[in-house]
Amino acid sequence: MAVYTHVTAEEITEFLKNYNEGEIISLKGIAEGVENTNYILQTTKASYILTLYEKRVNPDDLPFFLGLMDHLVKKGCNTAAPVRDRDGIILKTLCGRPAALISFLNGLSVNRPMANHCYQLGREMAKMHKAASDFGLSRGNALSVAGWQDLVLQCEDRADEVAVGLKDLLHDEMDFLKSHWPSDLPTGVIHADLFPDNVFFMGDELSGLIDYYFACNDILAYDVAISMNAWCFEADGAFNITKASRMLRGYVKERPLSDAEMSAMSILCRGASFRFLLSRLYDWLNQVEGALVKVKDPSEYINKLKFHRAVKSPSEYGLGI
Amino acid sequence: MAVYTHVTAEEITEFLKNYNEGEIISLKGIAEGVENTNYILQTTKASYILTLYEKRVNPDDLPFFLGLMDHLVKKGCNTAAPVRDRDGIILKTLCGRPAALISFLNGLSVNRPMANHCYQLGREMAKMHKAASDFGLSRGNALSVAGWQDLVLQCEDRADEVAVGLKDLLHDEMDFLKSHWPSDLPTGVIHADLFPDNVFFMGDELSGLIDYYFACNDILAYDVAISMNAWCFEADGAFNITKASRMLRGYVKERPLSDAEMSAMSILCRGASFRFLLSRLYDWLNQVEGALVKVKDPSEYINKLKFHRAVKSPSEYGLGI
Repeated sequence: MAVYTHVTAEEITEFLKNYNEGEIISLKGIAEGVENTNYILQTTKASYILTLYEKRVNPDDLPFFLGLMDHLVKKGCNTAAPVRDRDGIILKTLCGRPAALISFLNGLSVNRPMANHCYQLGREMAKMHKAASDFGLSRGNALSVAGWQDLVLQCEDRADEVAVGLKDLLHDEMDFLKSHWPSDLPTGVIHADLFPDNVFFMGDELSGLIDYYFACNDILAYDVAISMNAWCFEADGAFNITKASRMLRGYVKERPLSDAEMSAMSILCRGASFRFLLSRLYDWLNQVEGALVKVKDPSEYINKLKFHRAVKSPSEYGLGI
Repeated sequence: MAVYTHVTAEEITEFLKNYNEGEIISLKGIAEGVENTNYILQTTKASYILTLYEKRVNPDDLPFFLGLMDHLVKKGCNTAAPVRDRDGIILKTLCGRPAALISFLNGLSVNRPMANHCYQLGREMAKMHKAASDFGLSRGNALSVAGWQDLVLQCEDRADEVAVGLKDLLHDEMDFLKSHWPSDLPTGVIHADLFPDNVFFMGDELSGLIDYYFACNDILAYDVAISMNAWCFEADGAFNITKASRMLRGYVKERPLSDAEMSAMSILCRGASFRFLLSRLYDWLNQVEGALVKVKDPSEYINKLKFHRAVKSPSEYGLGI
């Protein structure tokens, strides 16, 4: 949470001259976004998010991310929309950085998701998967099997600093996932980071999804697995089968899951928890002194991984309920 | 710049039930405010700043700060206004902290103030001084002569780490200010922190003043001296007499400065630069590792102090121009 790049009144005033979005009323840096600088911009016309992409984002990926958001909005998804300037351009430059003006999406993220929130997320995710099926660009998932292998190599020597036995667990799981990761499931564009932070609700109604900056092409059901990890465990570590069941029910209301996808749910959930375990472990072991971003505890995902390793049947995720 | 206290959707929804300010649309933590947690809150009715007062603010001072803002708005000043709940209460509790809902003030702070901005600030400051003259509460200035003496004692041993000779300068200036600080000038409520960050403009028109959390009772012309230090030096350290002259002209348009006040301008400016030199020096020498707030370089104020020490006549501040 940080403003890495300070935009002055003069710079934003000049920038806005390229748009038909009214006169500036206010610009305030917001304490959100781990990777980028974000401002709330208010003009005489509306509110917006102004995003400046910092160095952790590959500029070559921006046409994919912004193009995807634009595509989804046009297909009727509840997603913040990139705003075009007078020349129809979305991706601009501000303060020497790639930048984009994004429509402001009303709503708040929920701190403790309930089963109803999970149901709505499932539905919205499936709608998004279907809507993205004719999106013209693609982007590989750098955090899939090959990426996990790299992270294992970078973390293994110090893994036991976080939990005794973690190094062995990483190797064991990596070996399993490498040899069992499914290759025949339906793929498409996934959000890949649908944590509660990135899903807004107005009251109890889902108002939209934000932050597509991990979106990529991968197994569609893997997106469900990521969100089951993020939404369906309680604070005490217990898996809430009711929430998982509701999420799956919401999903299949819009896009049926095949028997093959359901049968693979356990390994997809293992992969999803392994992915977040590894990235959190890497960040934990490589903390930058004085960094503005709070590092998340990786051990939460050790527990989740262990849960999925013990799952014997897809019914344990509650689809039959 | 930080969000110290995280307010959940559930907590803000509950909090807003006490107000007649509509239903919540959005809540985003903003990267502003050194001492407090600030959110932009949008409801179906309007935008607001929600402030949670963190431990560096003395809760006993809050009735003064919030009461002053309320008083100034009622007298027609351009200032963000505290919002009353259904029971007429301004100072509330949220997440275990004192909290207040404040109206949203449109405008942006200027990065490089021009003479016109200085003129408008002078006028608005004088209006504020007049409007506060019948405010019922008072608050001493903890950062006046006695407070400076404390800071000198806390900083002197390590002052030369910042600049060789600084310890001697601190003692010399402290001695001078102690024996010459004026005691017969008009006093009243001053803002005491009218830096460009705290003054908003819409285009080139001043739209209002914010952040009254250093406001106190002190010499009125000392407020002018603080702002001359903050607004009238160029990035290269040169004093811009045109800007100072315009600030003074703006001020006297609303509230005349007596000969005694003008004659004291040099010592008031010395005191003002000494005060910010000392607080920045203290923060510089006592940096907290991993702190979210960037510490400001004290040496800028060494240079400003030296400028004012060399001033021979109040005309050097440009009132005669």
